[in-house]
Amino acid sequence: MSSIPFYPRRSVDQVEEGCELAPKFGADGLVPCVTTDVTSHEVLMLGWMNAEALRLTLETGEAHYFSRSRQEMWRKGTTSGLVQKVVEARIDDDQDAIWLRVDIGGTAASCHVGYRSCFYRAIPTAEHAGDPLIFMENVKAFDPVATYGDAPNPTQL
Amino acid sequence: MSSIPFYPRRSVDQVEEGCELAPKFGADGLVPCVTTDVTSHEVLMLGWMNAEALRLTLETGEAHYFSRSRQEMWRKGTTSGLVQKVVEARIDDDQDAIWLRVDIGGTAASCHVGYRSCFYRAIPTAEHAGDPLIFMENVKAFDPVATYGDAPNPTQL
Repeated sequence: MSSIPFYPRRSVDQVEEGCELAPKFGADGLVPCVTTDVTSHEVLMLGWMNAEALRLTLETGEAHYFSRSRQEMWRKGTTSGLVQKVVEARIDDDQDAIWLRVDIGGTAASCHVGYRSCFYRAIPTAEHAGDPLIFMENVKAFDPVATYGDAPNPTQL
Repeated sequence: MSSIPFYPRRSVDQVEEGCELAPKFGADGLVPCVTTDVTSHEVLMLGWMNAEALRLTLETGEAHYFSRSRQEMWRKGTTSGLVQKVVEARIDDDQDAIWLRVDIGGTAASCHVGYRSCFYRAIPTAEHAGDPLIFMENVKAFDPVATYGDAPNPTQL
């Protein structure tokens, strides 16, 4: 289907200092992907990609993930309309993590709970360590019930 | 050792909409952590934390990770001097990912290869998909050989 080559990993020098895309997927076949908003710089979500999701993302310029809860390919925004257009994709030194800078438009939200960022709560640190989490977003960007209806919640306990 | 409580995960509502810290570690006992520079907003690295690394990070206000290659606790900057001071810690909706906003000082670098960010290469997308990776940093922020000597390279093939 795809013409994007994933090169075999031959040496540390090739992987770290080269220009060949040689991603390393975990034992579960997935690589973590950090997605940030190109305008606000906020970290929106931490998703997971299998080889197909990574290839589809690179080819289409729209973020695709692999849903671990549903165990299926997931083109972000198909249900919510909040498609993530990839402005820039990056890979890290040992090529086992992806960073996407995306433009969403509309409410610019990415979180299934309705918030803009999935990281809507701060964890107190240092002298405040152990205190309750603090909500950094107090108003939801969209109504998750209206958007997702009775679809199963992806959060797993 | 620590007084920071990690609560049991009782319900989706508690985990997503509550103020109790109830992190979910993977089968390997680890949770991914995105670390960004508080000034440049750049994603510096994607690290991993076990329960102890998360607690130490929250208590000390300095980023601690669990090194998967060395299989040991890792206070970032102990060797390089590039300690990451935590300005803000966040947790995501289902509490299985951490985001740290850090202040490093000095060269503000985080990557063992010598670059500022571990994500120093872009992956071409859309009509350029399949093209070679593009270096976004062309000058190393520090000399990794001078800094780490002959310590084993953490990159695994």
